[in-house]
Amino acid sequence: MKIADLDTPVVLIDLDVMEHNLRRMSDYCASYGLKLRPHTKTHKIPELARAQLQYNASGVTVAKLGEAEVMGHAGIDDILIVYPLVGESKLQRLVRLAERVTCTVALDSFEAAQAISLSAHKAGVTVGVRVEFDTGFARCGLPIKDTSMDTVKRIRDLSALRWDGLLTYPGHIMGTANSREFLIREENEKLERLLNFFSEEGIECPVVSGGNTPTAFQSHKFVGLTEIRPGTYIFNDRNTVCAESMTYDDCAATVLTTVVSRSVAGKAILDAGSKMLSGDLLLSGHQKGYGSIRQYPTAVIEDLSEEHAHVNLQSVDNPPKLGDILRVVPNHICPCINLQDRIYGCRGEEVTTEWEVTGRGKVQ
Amino acid sequence: MKIADLDTPVVLIDLDVMEHNLRRMSDYCASYGLKLRPHTKTHKIPELARAQLQYNASGVTVAKLGEAEVMGHAGIDDILIVYPLVGESKLQRLVRLAERVTCTVALDSFEAAQAISLSAHKAGVTVGVRVEFDTGFARCGLPIKDTSMDTVKRIRDLSALRWDGLLTYPGHIMGTANSREFLIREENEKLERLLNFFSEEGIECPVVSGGNTPTAFQSHKFVGLTEIRPGTYIFNDRNTVCAESMTYDDCAATVLTTVVSRSVAGKAILDAGSKMLSGDLLLSGHQKGYGSIRQYPTAVIEDLSEEHAHVNLQSVDNPPKLGDILRVVPNHICPCINLQDRIYGCRGEEVTTEWEVTGRGKVQ
Repeated sequence: MKIADLDTPVVLIDLDVMEHNLRRMSDYCASYGLKLRPHTKTHKIPELARAQLQYNASGVTVAKLGEAEVMGHAGIDDILIVYPLVGESKLQRLVRLAERVTCTVALDSFEAAQAISLSAHKAGVTVGVRVEFDTGFARCGLPIKDTSMDTVKRIRDLSALRWDGLLTYPGHIMGTANSREFLIREENEKLERLLNFFSEEGIECPVVSGGNTPTAFQSHKFVGLTEIRPGTYIFNDRNTVCAESMTYDDCAATVLTTVVSRSVAGKAILDAGSKMLSGDLLLSGHQKGYGSIRQYPTAVIEDLSEEHAHVNLQSVDNPPKLGDILRVVPNHICPCINLQDRIYGCRGEEVTTEWEVTGRGKVQ
Repeated sequence: MKIADLDTPVVLIDLDVMEHNLRRMSDYCASYGLKLRPHTKTHKIPELARAQLQYNASGVTVAKLGEAEVMGHAGIDDILIVYPLVGESKLQRLVRLAERVTCTVALDSFEAAQAISLSAHKAGVTVGVRVEFDTGFARCGLPIKDTSMDTVKRIRDLSALRWDGLLTYPGHIMGTANSREFLIREENEKLERLLNFFSEEGIECPVVSGGNTPTAFQSHKFVGLTEIRPGTYIFNDRNTVCAESMTYDDCAATVLTTVVSRSVAGKAILDAGSKMLSGDLLLSGHQKGYGSIRQYPTAVIEDLSEEHAHVNLQSVDNPPKLGDILRVVPNHICPCINLQDRIYGCRGEEVTTEWEVTGRGKVQ
């Protein structure tokens, strides 16, 4: 099948670019002795998780238990769930999965840890645990204070949990390359203070897991990290480009979309709306809009309806015609993939692969 | 099953409220002699489309052809596709559907109409056509100019199309009740000018379809309308409340969600992020955030990650605890439902119904 045979809108993956992205991250981690545990929320596809393992990942990361189940059922055997699991039904599902798969959870309360330990003990399984600390994103994580070490010690003492170490997610380290340098220095002061608390208490951390997407290739600059959990690197997106981490040539995923209306002056309407691209705004840089059109880089996708992209053509000389097929790099590829039942892989103009997005919509 | 037995996050529909909403819209349309053609993009569930037909809808509206196929396969036999269908594969699918179901399309170009007519002619079917005019939203639609009447006449003359009339979508009529009054007057001047063009040319419009959600119960104030296509009214959402069209008591749909972290001071983290609520912002009024928490109306969902709602608790006296179950009214219910594989209906505390969201993700 050729790309021209695909109906639109649809997500297309350039396999050469994807493999280049996988190799680059693998080489980077190897050269700095960092373990790589890719966040599969970006693609939600077991076949791609396996590709990441072939490119030297030591295991995978998922966001929700439902994603862990999808990966576990597909034979992935070392899964980190970076989400606080709370509630009895989640615990039952976790221990069932842990009977077959090495499961590790990240959490930030003794209560959550105790409940998991109790369920694991009853089921006769062991679950790995990492304690999350908040380095400034202010979402999940214990505060970096000596008082938090009591919680750590109580969690470490729980019988059915395997102590794995600590985890951070510095989601606040955003912006373009220059502005991030200061934030990385600030982050390192926090990491040093945190690691000092651990060494003062004599608590070893087999794993110190951290890093985020914009800084993925600067992970060696962070104090003490042993592991990173990048997600977007497999495809890249407009966010990674506008954060000056990558170029559009590194973006493996595009949305193929048709011009369905040219009736309003100065505008083109595409058949990919927020139900296709997601409504996520850019996180870095000064560019506007909901995606970048490969054939018309100066055009601005200035608004999204659920099924329409509203493209402003003011700065475009030879505007697209009704029926033209365009390729859009989305702002944020993760929620875009979550909106797809299946996506396609191509080499050149040939569509060579079709994947079901098995982990789509697993919010529980 | 009780509500307390449901795992979170999950969408729950209060069936008493939903039926009240259906009855109110049915009564309103009946009292003003307006035809009701509900937009099923809000729920994407054939069973609920059938409920709307029982409440006096004359047919249904869908956004994409894939949604039309879902509704058609489920036995709904009168479907308006308010989307310009462009591209050969779409035309083939349309005529196959039109063999079994009364299909009508809205479009805004002779080229799109001609291609549909040709395919319909070859297949020996008839497809209804409505020409869309732009009254100010500047998305799709011909301009309200006498020159557009040539396009209308050429479309009306196409052999395999049944001329149905005209269609508008005044998506720009937003804001709170007072600010909309002026916009409705402005809209009426445009509608009068448009209808004058039609009567000057002697072109009858069996249907004049228009209206939007915030003005649904003011549709009788619009000049010449014979039909409205409201969607959100079946559930309502925070948008319809903040547009002063409804109250929270009229909101049938809530997201059941668990507090999964209270580690960051002044915050609660819920397990419903943008993958559950959608990232859509409020369209009207001065309130902030991504949803309203029923139990904590002053709390602000100030940010969403894909899997986390970040709740600011500054204005809350007795904050929720880890593990508490909350109910959130989303800003915009349509993209929220599009993210669900299934949703549940309840009466009081009893969960009585489960629906598969069969039309979810039908972007093509």
